Amino acid sequence: MAGLISASMPVLVIEEPMHGHQTFSTLNEGLGKVLRYGANSPDVLAKLRWIEQVLGPVLARAVRATGGIEVKPMTAQALQMGDELHNRNKAATSLFFREIAAYMVETGTSTEETASVLRYIHGNDFFYLNLSMAACKAVTLAAHGIPFSSVVTTMARNGTDFGIRVSGLGDRWYVGPSQKVKGLYFSGYSEEDANPDIGDSTISETAGIGAFAMATAPAIVQFIGGTPADALQYTLEMYDITVTEDSQYQLPPLSFRGTPTGIDIRQVVRQNLLPIINTGIAHRLPGVGQVGAGIVRPPMECFVAAVRELAGNIQDQS
Amino acid sequence: MAGLISASMPVLVIEEPMHGHQTFSTLNEGLGKVLRYGANSPDVLAKLRWIEQVLGPVLARAVRATGGIEVKPMTAQALQMGDELHNRNKAATSLFFREIAAYMVETGTSTEETASVLRYIHGNDFFYLNLSMAACKAVTLAAHGIPFSSVVTTMARNGTDFGIRVSGLGDRWYVGPSQKVKGLYFSGYSEEDANPDIGDSTISETAGIGAFAMATAPAIVQFIGGTPADALQYTLEMYDITVTEDSQYQLPPLSFRGTPTGIDIRQVVRQNLLPIINTGIAHRLPGVGQVGAGIVRPPMECFVAAVRELAGNIQDQS
Repeated sequence: MAGLISASMPVLVIEEPMHGHQTFSTLNEGLGKVLRYGANSPDVLAKLRWIEQVLGPVLARAVRATGGIEVKPMTAQALQMGDELHNRNKAATSLFFREIAAYMVETGTSTEETASVLRYIHGNDFFYLNLSMAACKAVTLAAHGIPFSSVVTTMARNGTDFGIRVSGLGDRWYVGPSQKVKGLYFSGYSEEDANPDIGDSTISETAGIGAFAMATAPAIVQFIGGTPADALQYTLEMYDITVTEDSQYQLPPLSFRGTPTGIDIRQVVRQNLLPIINTGIAHRLPGVGQVGAGIVRPPMECFVAAVRELAGNIQDQS
Repeated sequence: MAGLISASMPVLVIEEPMHGHQTFSTLNEGLGKVLRYGANSPDVLAKLRWIEQVLGPVLARAVRATGGIEVKPMTAQALQMGDELHNRNKAATSLFFREIAAYMVETGTSTEETASVLRYIHGNDFFYLNLSMAACKAVTLAAHGIPFSSVVTTMARNGTDFGIRVSGLGDRWYVGPSQKVKGLYFSGYSEEDANPDIGDSTISETAGIGAFAMATAPAIVQFIGGTPADALQYTLEMYDITVTEDSQYQLPPLSFRGTPTGIDIRQVVRQNLLPIINTGIAHRLPGVGQVGAGIVRPPMECFVAAVRELAGNIQDQS
């Protein structure tokens, strides 16, 4: 493994011009045996090397040639094409592919290399997810740090704990135990193999997409389980615990109503209604990787603890 | 215009292996001022020349390099991505673009030419429509000529008459007057500019997609008018006048029910329920082109005449 010491990992950079901050994400490796789900076999490492040496540079040249790609309008279009942008990114990946392909041709250094990168993105319907997550981080970061705000600005899980951060509560994490994901398993795996809820991809739901937008993505149930009626219902429920509707992210099946956005910890506790999350399932043992995908909710503890803290702060202030 | 005499028009070729026939379509020119809607200004002709000299050859080399692209699975995927494949082809065009791009890179003769063709397809969300129409023709052709079958195998309009052909009634057309299309107009145009229903694109509905699949394409109402609830209702109605449901073309919003397929002239007349069609609107004057898109139905006369003929034939036989 000594060779890895000299390796670098190319990242996507999202710029949020209004607040002037940047957010980052690695490039998506696909499903199954991938580093981000704990796999680390030689083929996983070989793919990471290819991402470093081929995909990263080709993409960097092409993206620079575009002068920068606007992510939010692309996500908005994908939401009208059956993606919810967490576990279904097929339309968004297609739109990104369309946007970048000609620039790759123009900035490519060899036919073989350009074709190999196009085939890689074409072969990975989750490619756009990492752009989307970094963009969601940029959006939620902009909402963080508003005094006394009860809006959730981060949700993340490390496989043992589920933590949230709240706009008006600084950088403290409010945590509870990671829950079991209920979903569909890849061939050869079952619930017994699953680790509890893990990863930071739930920045999607924090920003109002992912499971919050499942009304527009009925086909996702083939990947995560449940029925199209469930998918619709999940979105409708989330309007009860969010503070606004996104004016750009419109859901055609709900007559173009905006996505439910900005989880309010007070409403979560008052209505005893937890945010819904769709997510990949990691194997509980290191080295295996992703084994399925499904639906999960955070533990109520973190919301109760955050509400108590916020109430205390407001009392101290008055 | 003398130069045009020597011009040729590249066509897409669809092969239907089970019956061994081929169907054809020109390459899509986009919306607005295009030859297929009657426009013929110098810029329209210039684009046709570019299609002949650049797009056609580039595409031909790339498609040959693929060994042939399967259209039906691509259409099936697009139906899960908000396309109904008549007036919304954004997902299908994206999927085709993804499929062909690397092959274009590998078979291209210059960077500029390859990039220009990729940009052309990227800029035209209707590009896939012409593949789809030729594929629909292949499917409906396979259903034509079954003795005593009451299934419609062609619907087409010339701007004055609407005609249908029926599987068990040979090559005779049953006609009635073309109807007014109710829809949305491009900027600067209104109902007064509209020609009655025109074109052969309703091969889409004849094959069970287009307006028949609108339940899966709520976002289309932004282009043709109406509401997402209307779109859902149109598809549900069509199950009452069709003979089967397509097992590959599944509609996620209807819990993956297959598209209503095969219009039965007996049911149309018995239930007094006409097929629904979504379609582009041509200007009534030559040279202008497409001015909008909307919803229309055929005249009942053609179905009544066809049912009478079929009933007579059955009586003669018994």
